[in-house]
This record gives sequence, structure tokens and C-alpha cells, in this order.
Amino acid sequence: MPDTPIVSSLRRAEPGFAWERVARLPYKEGDAAPFKAISRQTLFSDPRLKGELRYFEIEPGGFSTLERHEHMHAVVILRGEGHCLIGDLVYALRPCDLITIDPWTWHQFRAGQGEVLGFLCLVDRDRDKPQLPSAADLAGLRARPEVARFLDGSL
Amino acid sequence: MPDTPIVSSLRRAEPGFAWERVARLPYKEGDAAPFKAISRQTLFSDPRLKGELRYFEIEPGGFSTLERHEHMHAVVILRGEGHCLIGDLVYALRPCDLITIDPWTWHQFRAGQGEVLGFLCLVDRDRDKPQLPSAADLAGLRARPEVARFLDGSL
Repeated sequence: MPDTPIVSSLRRAEPGFAWERVARLPYKEGDAAPFKAISRQTLFSDPRLKGELRYFEIEPGGFSTLERHEHMHAVVILRGEGHCLIGDLVYALRPCDLITIDPWTWHQFRAGQGEVLGFLCLVDRDRDKPQLPSAADLAGLRARPEVARFLDGSL
Repeated sequence: MPDTPIVSSLRRAEPGFAWERVARLPYKEGDAAPFKAISRQTLFSDPRLKGELRYFEIEPGGFSTLERHEHMHAVVILRGEGHCLIGDLVYALRPCDLITIDPWTWHQFRAGQGEVLGFLCLVDRDRDKPQLPSAADLAGLRARPEVARFLDGSL
């Protein structure tokens, strides 16, 4: 008998952007960073693969943490609508849009008020921890009216 | 002026699984390997990211090359229906299904006769070249009737 169970190469999609043998987890654990109404499903994470692919889903009115880090994000929107902040620019998002977040760039995703926002996010498997903005960083970001409206959830 | 052009973080989806500033390319170039009716779009390939994400689309009746290599594939079906061979097992595919292809495992994707098959494929950016099956490898694979039917496109 093999030491490890034989696992099928296929994990079937289930209704509602869920998958066989993929847990829907809290977005973050043991973290004081602010976020709201967002879940995380790790679709691919394997020591033999240098990238990791996760599916995040944000409920209406929810948002990811505003943060930055050295590692990059490469994002494919899969469902719904919302906005993201990248640096000091705000983008409206629709299904299949592609987003690149460069190293050390402030970023946050927000679902619309009446829409779920679901997206795939590719990262390196080995990566650094995020940094949160200081009060001065936030004030700098809020200097642009559109960014302030984004951060207030009133876009 | 910066040396490199400033490129927006967002590339919009266009109708029919196409994207701004993403070329729809032949599946392979300068390669004698057999394949049919398949295109490749590289969505994310960046020297600062260790993974690479491509979108492949196979027209009805088309197929990718039957091959194997050391690097892994992690696949998310995005549209349509078809089958894949992984090792000596054949799987029917539907949108959002997840497929893992282990190192050195023979694999091929085929669209259905009346359906496009479109999927995302995550690989390491640095990776080895594929190997093609020998006549003996093919005979071994065809020993399973379902695999023979798959290879003949008659599933």
C-alpha cells in the first residue's frame, strides 16, 4: 500500500464556485488587518509548483485588506462586479478582466453593493508578508477624491 | 521620461475569451508535434512572478499534443466541454473543473465534437521541454479500450 492516498487528478466543480476537496476558508486567520465578508479557496498549492492559485470571493459590500508587499499578484476576475485600488488608481472590474499588481503597490478589492466579486489570484508559493498602511500612507491615498470614495465604499 | 512605457495594471476582457494587449497565438511554433485547432494566449508572464498563466482554446474536434515533461500543470476549465487523458485515465471535463497533471505523466486535452474547450493552465515560468511518446508508449496507452477511443477522437 502506498503511504499517501492516491488522489484523483480531477476535482469537480460544484455549484456556486465551490470544488470537491477544496475548503472555503476565512480570508485571513489570526490577523488584525481589516477586511470584510471575504472567503478564500486554495485551488492549487503544491511543493512541485512555484505558483499558487487561489479563488477569493467577496460578498456585496465586502472588501479585502488594503495592503502592499514585495510579491506580485496576477488576478483574473471570474464573477460579479466591483472595484479595485492599485496604487492611486481605481478600476471598475468585470468578469474575465486581468489585473497585475506590481511589488510594493497598495491594493484593495471591493465588491459592489449588490454584487459578489469572485476572482482567481496567482502568487508565488514562497512570498513575503503584507504591510498595512500607516496613517500618513492613508492620508496620502485619500488625497485623491476617487480613492477616498473607493475607501469609503461609496463608489 | 521613464525608459519603459507605463502599462496599465488592468487589461479588459473582450468578447469571446479575448483580452486587450493579449495576442491569440498558435498553440506551438516550429514544432513537429501533432496537435489540431488550438490557440494559446499568455495572460501572465512576468520575470517577477514564478508562475505563468496561459489560456488555451481548442475548437470542436481539436486536441493538444500528447506529451509528458517534468514540470506540472494546474488547469481550470473555463468554457465548453471535452475530455483529457492523464496517465491511463480519461476524464470528462466541464467548466470550473480543476485538473492536476503530475510530473512525467502522459496527458492530452480534446474538445468535444460540437464544443469549444477553453482552459487556464498554470505552469512554472522556467520549465523543461515536453517529450513525445514512442510507438511502444502509444501501444501501451492504447491497451486500455477507453484510452484508445479517446486517442481516436471517438469518445
